[in-house]
Amino acid sequence: MSDDYTDYYSASARVMTRSLIRELLKLTRRRNIISFAGGLPDPSTFPVEELKVITTHVLETQPQLALQYGPTEGDLRLRQELVKWMAKDGIRVTPDQVLITVGSQQGLDLVGRVFVDPGDVVVVELPSYMAALHVFRGYRAEMVGVPQDDDGMRIDVLESTLTSLRAAGRRVKLIYVVPDFQNPSGVTLAEDRRLRLLALAREHRALVVEDTPYRELRYEGMAPPPLAALDTDGRVIYLSTFSKTLSPGMRIAWMAAPEPLIHQFVTAKQAIDLCCPSLTQAIAAEFCARGHIYERVGRLVDLYRRKRDVMLAALEREMPEGVTWTHPAGGLFLWIRLPDGMDTEKLLPAAIEEEGVAYVVGSGFHADGGGRNALRVNYSFPSEDQINEGIKRLARLVKRHLPAKTLTAG
Amino acid sequence: MSDDYTDYYSASARVMTRSLIRELLKLTRRRNIISFAGGLPDPSTFPVEELKVITTHVLETQPQLALQYGPTEGDLRLRQELVKWMAKDGIRVTPDQVLITVGSQQGLDLVGRVFVDPGDVVVVELPSYMAALHVFRGYRAEMVGVPQDDDGMRIDVLESTLTSLRAAGRRVKLIYVVPDFQNPSGVTLAEDRRLRLLALAREHRALVVEDTPYRELRYEGMAPPPLAALDTDGRVIYLSTFSKTLSPGMRIAWMAAPEPLIHQFVTAKQAIDLCCPSLTQAIAAEFCARGHIYERVGRLVDLYRRKRDVMLAALEREMPEGVTWTHPAGGLFLWIRLPDGMDTEKLLPAAIEEEGVAYVVGSGFHADGGGRNALRVNYSFPSEDQINEGIKRLARLVKRHLPAKTLTAG
Repeated sequence: MSDDYTDYYSASARVMTRSLIRELLKLTRRRNIISFAGGLPDPSTFPVEELKVITTHVLETQPQLALQYGPTEGDLRLRQELVKWMAKDGIRVTPDQVLITVGSQQGLDLVGRVFVDPGDVVVVELPSYMAALHVFRGYRAEMVGVPQDDDGMRIDVLESTLTSLRAAGRRVKLIYVVPDFQNPSGVTLAEDRRLRLLALAREHRALVVEDTPYRELRYEGMAPPPLAALDTDGRVIYLSTFSKTLSPGMRIAWMAAPEPLIHQFVTAKQAIDLCCPSLTQAIAAEFCARGHIYERVGRLVDLYRRKRDVMLAALEREMPEGVTWTHPAGGLFLWIRLPDGMDTEKLLPAAIEEEGVAYVVGSGFHADGGGRNALRVNYSFPSEDQINEGIKRLARLVKRHLPAKTLTAG
Repeated sequence: MSDDYTDYYSASARVMTRSLIRELLKLTRRRNIISFAGGLPDPSTFPVEELKVITTHVLETQPQLALQYGPTEGDLRLRQELVKWMAKDGIRVTPDQVLITVGSQQGLDLVGRVFVDPGDVVVVELPSYMAALHVFRGYRAEMVGVPQDDDGMRIDVLESTLTSLRAAGRRVKLIYVVPDFQNPSGVTLAEDRRLRLLALAREHRALVVEDTPYRELRYEGMAPPPLAALDTDGRVIYLSTFSKTLSPGMRIAWMAAPEPLIHQFVTAKQAIDLCCPSLTQAIAAEFCARGHIYERVGRLVDLYRRKRDVMLAALEREMPEGVTWTHPAGGLFLWIRLPDGMDTEKLLPAAIEEEGVAYVVGSGFHADGGGRNALRVNYSFPSEDQINEGIKRLARLVKRHLPAKTLTAG
């Protein structure tokens, strides 16, 4: 038969999009370039020694648990530890309201699977997390974007959007938000907006998906409470992960939600992969029980704050007038806007070929195709030297391609 | 809001079925009963010492690989080892034709996601693997069953089924088969039938999903080649796993298929979970590279053959006339048929409450609702003593509920 299997594919397969970032990561691995494209933790932070001790301990003391099939819900001891971990942020749940997932990505997929029929409306931020857009697109949702400012999603626009959708007879099933140090923009949703978002969700009978992988990594200021802690009527599905605080390669993440929803997610997950690996869950549970996860956060915050500051200083030093960027209070990313009319997608080949620097183009994060003059850069993975050199290269590229009027203005 | 979220669920969520087996497993864990219901490996076989040594080695020598995000395709070294592992069965593929999955269950889900639109026809065996039926049901496939005999799927019936479907203008997208020591029946698809199945698939333009988790566990006779080794035109999607040969708790499984299909599965998996855990993949790769996986099979075969023989002898000894069972040449399961008119679902509460023995009811494995007088029993997990005692209990139960005419005949 021919190599073309298109005729066999489902409607969902036909609209799936390949991750720009993961494709780009492959490219940057093959060349000697500085990549700001990924969202990888600094590998020097991996707790190798602790994990060696704990893995040996787990295999010695509970091999029948760590190597056998486990419950779909996840390792009970790990869920108990996560209940404590979330309690520090004011989230009150029982282990029966927690489901362990293979990365938060699986949580997003479960949300898509359980709620989204083709044509259902999902509200997302502009910009929003690219891989969440891929999930919702794969389930053929209709995505409606709400812009951000420095305090996160603009709730006034959310309100008018919800009202016009209702007037048009459209029901909004989900509002998807990354409230803390958003990926890609780095901005945080202000506390009063969190309350208003929940009130609007209630009024319009939408569920809220709170995806917060970076919450622990706060470099300044006070943390507003999670939406899940402010929720009074079982409307928030909370997603979190140890990918940034322990290790992404262990793929330990979880969902917290009202028990009937967890029950439905578990039913879906049975058919998706039966259960997460028991070994990595047992290791993570022991890592929490020994207090290591609590001890680590301070050190991570110190390291990443310094890297953020190095990047902010380099941008200040190198970038020409007309270029702006966010000042994230935490997380792994900065969002840079070039002057109007510039196109970061068109610039990317030159960035890689001529300057040896990589980033992610802004349009990939926009459900509405916007963000063409924006780009996302990561500061957690590159070294301080690479940050300085990479931003210098990026600035050189930008200056070379500045539109004429900006040149004159400068 | 109320606790009823049904109004929010997708069409797919509304038809999802919960695994009888996994629910039953929870029940049997809480009581002092002998369970033949699971499909768990004997935990005494877990290679704890080797895994301790290897995990320490992996964390010492390649922490940045084992703890960081990995490629969606899976760890390259593991894929290279799997290429060698499959070559011993005559399957010739490159690492680019292999995708690592979280258990074979994820492979099945990817198949559903990438190929099945609501109403698409999927041919399955009668009986068939329960969790595969759940996947296809979740994607709202129309499942069409083809019965088995002692040589596996009846290809004459497959042929007439495909012909009538074509006459009715229906296209069959997938033929799903567990050819080696099938779950639940234990029967193996004969070699000539494999060739005829592939020829029919070609003629009717269907893809073939070959799911073979037990293939290594052969206790007697010669292994027919896998469908994937006989495939001449890129029509077979091969699923295998280390769950029975290394450890189910590591969730290491894989798909092998033509490269364009692997590319499409990778695109889908990016949105599903980004990548499998790197740590467990690095451990599995090293476990293969050291030859441990090859050394283990002989010992597993000896152990499970003995357990199978104990169960066959106990059935011979205990069961009344009118009860029949399969004689599996490998794998983990036996399939028992009670006299017509008996209903294993109705018997199950009595089995658990009165006799303290559990099994899985046959109807759960039947896409057409049949198999009511059948049940599946597992012999890999219980001890030899438990097998003897459990079959005695089961026989006692069956005798007590035999229909009148069989009692007279006896």
